[in-house]
Amino acid sequence: MQLKNDLILRTSRGEKTERTPVWLMRQAGRVLPEYRAVRAKMGSFEELVKSPEFAAEVTIQPVDILGVDAAIIFSDILVIPDAMGCHYEMIESRGPIFPSPIKTEADVNKLIISNPEEDLAYVLEAIKLTKQGLAGRVPLIGFAGAPWTIFAYMVEGSGSKTFSKAKYWLYNNPTLSHKLLDKITESTILYLKAQIKAGADLVQLFDSWAGILSPTQYREFALPYISRICDAITEVPMTVFAKGAFFAREEMGKLSCNTIGLDWNMDITESRKLVGPSKVLQGNFDPCALYAGYAEIEKMAKQMLDEFGPHHHIANLGHGLYPDIEPDKVKCFINTIKEYSSQMAR
Amino acid sequence: MQLKNDLILRTSRGEKTERTPVWLMRQAGRVLPEYRAVRAKMGSFEELVKSPEFAAEVTIQPVDILGVDAAIIFSDILVIPDAMGCHYEMIESRGPIFPSPIKTEADVNKLIISNPEEDLAYVLEAIKLTKQGLAGRVPLIGFAGAPWTIFAYMVEGSGSKTFSKAKYWLYNNPTLSHKLLDKITESTILYLKAQIKAGADLVQLFDSWAGILSPTQYREFALPYISRICDAITEVPMTVFAKGAFFAREEMGKLSCNTIGLDWNMDITESRKLVGPSKVLQGNFDPCALYAGYAEIEKMAKQMLDEFGPHHHIANLGHGLYPDIEPDKVKCFINTIKEYSSQMAR
Repeated sequence: MQLKNDLILRTSRGEKTERTPVWLMRQAGRVLPEYRAVRAKMGSFEELVKSPEFAAEVTIQPVDILGVDAAIIFSDILVIPDAMGCHYEMIESRGPIFPSPIKTEADVNKLIISNPEEDLAYVLEAIKLTKQGLAGRVPLIGFAGAPWTIFAYMVEGSGSKTFSKAKYWLYNNPTLSHKLLDKITESTILYLKAQIKAGADLVQLFDSWAGILSPTQYREFALPYISRICDAITEVPMTVFAKGAFFAREEMGKLSCNTIGLDWNMDITESRKLVGPSKVLQGNFDPCALYAGYAEIEKMAKQMLDEFGPHHHIANLGHGLYPDIEPDKVKCFINTIKEYSSQMAR
Repeated sequence: MQLKNDLILRTSRGEKTERTPVWLMRQAGRVLPEYRAVRAKMGSFEELVKSPEFAAEVTIQPVDILGVDAAIIFSDILVIPDAMGCHYEMIESRGPIFPSPIKTEADVNKLIISNPEEDLAYVLEAIKLTKQGLAGRVPLIGFAGAPWTIFAYMVEGSGSKTFSKAKYWLYNNPTLSHKLLDKITESTILYLKAQIKAGADLVQLFDSWAGILSPTQYREFALPYISRICDAITEVPMTVFAKGAFFAREEMGKLSCNTIGLDWNMDITESRKLVGPSKVLQGNFDPCALYAGYAEIEKMAKQMLDEFGPHHHIANLGHGLYPDIEPDKVKCFINTIKEYSSQMAR
């Protein structure tokens, strides 16, 4: 089906567009009362993730309600460990818990390279339903966690401030760490390719825990796997968002992806210099800046656009939307981006 | 009393020294069985902080056991809000909780500029006892939290991944935020001066939550207050450690302090360039690198020293010591620093 709004795809491919495309990480989620109504029908978060019809419904919600230029499939980065045989539960207000985290070489050997058509059929089905529901209004973004972040959860067994168990592995058993990262990488490539085959028009890799590693470890245990995924995905544009990896921006500029996501700590001008001129940049409004008043949000959004310039930029936050932000504030941000960037591009 | 080892003071003042001084953030704490024995006698963490004799005892422990070149007074950055009238409890394995966090302008107005000689007499007494106990073996470091970090706890009411309540204030009520930051700053200056008068030979400011702010907000709500404190403390050398403030390294170089602390995400060579040649740098071994084997720790510690060079460096971790590190690994790090840096300085 022909897309009516393919702005984000043209921008991702490096074209100069009539305005800056905009979407928000976690745009489908607790910030919308409409999402909370669907969520309330489900026993658990995992149930929602594994119910293609409902996942499609909440994926489409922000397109109509907020007016974003892309939908992102409602899912979780932890479906990959789950599909590989390392299961998790999402505990409300605590985050994910893995009852049997990876502890030994035998645990690593037992993990399978997941076959997404079987093990992750529910995501692929949700993508197909979403594409039908969107009917070409906007492109659909697929995603996965970057290997280091997935590794961190699988070894740590939960979220953590320090991920010291996961880092213990890197320092104590680099060979086994690489073996696990390799398996995650292979699963992720197959998974992203399956998402694309099912209809994803663009894919994003989230390295949520990039900022936990030292530059040296990031270069050894994270970047090579991200790079391998970027090289494997040639079908659609790809974005890499490594939160906290300010120290790797120069290397990020050399990845064979289209877009690099910036978090709100990263200075825009400096990031452009480090990443280089050839990449599209995505980001990087402070999620908390949406607590400000309307006039202030408008002012700050315009400042951000002035810094990024009229082209090679996808407007977004520097992290996911927080659940207690008023939807009208989100709309104010989105509308400001649309209007002001149209003026800039003229 | 004449100091037998004043290495860290000479290095802090910019002198070239015979080797690199070394101490570790959280060196007095759960990593030592000797600390845990003292802690077990106390009902709560606060009780230990408020018992000068025991606080002095655990402060001195790592000097003998680990062989560090400085002691740091065992205390907590949150004694300042406590002394200002905003009390907290330390909940084991959860962190600090403020039963009545700051919510309104009236709450801010009610806070006092604390008089350390009265409200924080227990810290000053612990410093005096420690100085007696140290008997000149090594210098004693005093410390305080940086105003933004203290503000963040007082408004948020606890630790947080996002500190979104505290940031809500910055975006919604900058005037009131500045008023609170101002009161914290005044209390902190008096507190540090009292610590110096009681015997602290060097002071460090910890901006633990620097990395939560955008560069713009850090410039408005954090740096000016740090700068004011640096200007006020002229008696002894001063260190500023702002975790995660990679974006502010250039501005940090302009503060009137002696030393800038680096976290383990910050590249050493780049940091030296950004901070400039006139400051001493402190840091920045990854705390998790102490999980590695002895040979590996030695190798990595030497690499770090090679990067920092033989002078204008105080060796430390890039964050506090984790409680599950083996003390012998810590000793291995410290001994490597001492031996290898002696060779380098020759």
